[in-house]
Amino acid sequence: AYDIMRRGLGMSAAEQQPYFAEWNRGVLDSYLIEITADILGHTDDTGPTVDVILDAAGQKGTGKWTVVSSMEEAVPVTLVGESVYARMVSALKDERSFAATRLGGEVRPLDDDPTEVIADLHDALYGSKIVSYAQGFMLIRTASQDRGWNLDPGTIAGLWRAGCIIRSRFLADITRAFRANPTLHNLLLDDFFVDEVARVLPGWRRTVARAALAGIPTPAYATALSFYDAYRSARLPANLIQAQRDYFGAHMYERTDRPRGEWFHTDWTGEGGDVTSSAYDA
Amino acid sequence: AYDIMRRGLGMSAAEQQPYFAEWNRGVLDSYLIEITADILGHTDDTGPTVDVILDAAGQKGTGKWTVVSSMEEAVPVTLVGESVYARMVSALKDERSFAATRLGGEVRPLDDDPTEVIADLHDALYGSKIVSYAQGFMLIRTASQDRGWNLDPGTIAGLWRAGCIIRSRFLADITRAFRANPTLHNLLLDDFFVDEVARVLPGWRRTVARAALAGIPTPAYATALSFYDAYRSARLPANLIQAQRDYFGAHMYERTDRPRGEWFHTDWTGEGGDVTSSAYDA
Repeated sequence: AYDIMRRGLGMSAAEQQPYFAEWNRGVLDSYLIEITADILGHTDDTGPTVDVILDAAGQKGTGKWTVVSSMEEAVPVTLVGESVYARMVSALKDERSFAATRLGGEVRPLDDDPTEVIADLHDALYGSKIVSYAQGFMLIRTASQDRGWNLDPGTIAGLWRAGCIIRSRFLADITRAFRANPTLHNLLLDDFFVDEVARVLPGWRRTVARAALAGIPTPAYATALSFYDAYRSARLPANLIQAQRDYFGAHMYERTDRPRGEWFHTDWTGEGGDVTSSAYDA
Repeated sequence: AYDIMRRGLGMSAAEQQPYFAEWNRGVLDSYLIEITADILGHTDDTGPTVDVILDAAGQKGTGKWTVVSSMEEAVPVTLVGESVYARMVSALKDERSFAATRLGGEVRPLDDDPTEVIADLHDALYGSKIVSYAQGFMLIRTASQDRGWNLDPGTIAGLWRAGCIIRSRFLADITRAFRANPTLHNLLLDDFFVDEVARVLPGWRRTVARAALAGIPTPAYATALSFYDAYRSARLPANLIQAQRDYFGAHMYERTDRPRGEWFHTDWTGEGGDVTSSAYDA
């Protein structure tokens, strides 16, 4: 959001500060939004402090650890994944500075009404946050089941409200969702969150589209939207992947017109043989 | 590409087949495009074979392994990451079918000229493929340096041309790039690939924007574009992340007006104390 306001709308830190402060009085009310408003309003003797801070993020490793867990548990925690990767890209400071001279580092300023762009940003941030928490609880649920931990998601969301950097009003909504329906399979299926996502979806879509056309990276908003759109798709294109895997590696496939667990192989080339490419397949 | 043609343009497998066959005669010439054309043209007694294959992809684990390596080496291999996660989402077949009834599973048909949509798809696929290989070679280079392996990227690209499922004409371009400049730091900085990406970028941007607005997931195209746009940005918003990390955890930051390696801390709240939130930070 900060980058789109800065590079897309040309807003200074001081100009952005009131929007984050306002967001902190609504559904995005949270510690991280609150301190962002504080940071954007902070100046030192060189001007806005945030402007002179080097744009190369460090990390303590909790994000990487979450990604490795997501691979082990086969749970698509895409926002943490993209966020960890985004910090890695930021750390390539010298390489990026060189690349900007070779590839052109400009973005196309946004020519939409700034008020609409900012309202849409709010919605993109809120929708993406909902997806990220939904993914996190998918990982917790899967790990809990696999390991017999009997974790209670409502209690976990409650714990995070006490002193944690992710504390937010939003966590109370999560606790309420899991308390109301202890067998809730996914936050995205809770009535409250179904309505919230539906409400913010148009602005979220416009934000991703606008940034893609302008050349401003939105790895988290974009992956959250792709996840949401995939999650609500009864039919995804993975049938083609399964066909490819059967073609090159005879991995076989299931069919929509047969029960799960029955596996089929096609002689795709009509030339017989089970495997057309045995090395390095996936 | 298959999903956008299918759900965005309403094209049958048979209608798509000629496009993949045509792509296989150009810069996308590769084993995987070739077999995709074969697959789309294959029928059995129920009709197009691909249409009855279940859309729940399996995986052997090489993708997960690559993601875990990317976390260890701190290299942003975002396309493999998103691709592995996309297979995981596809595997949630029953949950997706239920979610489609709760959240609405429709996509908005594309109303642009189909010929333009398909030309843009080609460009999105090619641009994303270039980024994915660039990321893969970043991981190989980093691992080679860290472990003293002295791997030669041009030779590796050559090896992949022999019998591997990723074999393609494109690998010859990669070998040529590394042979021409053995110290080439990143494929995206090679003259040939600089020009190729510049050529396909507008269509790639339109593809990501169009799919975001239509509700069709494009996790790989979108993350590739965000990576490219971040990579060519001399200045990213990670200064705000560093400010946040200093605010909540006193992790300190470097400054753009001071040499690297000098670390600073700000008393953001004016209330003294080094740390405002000590638990669970990142």
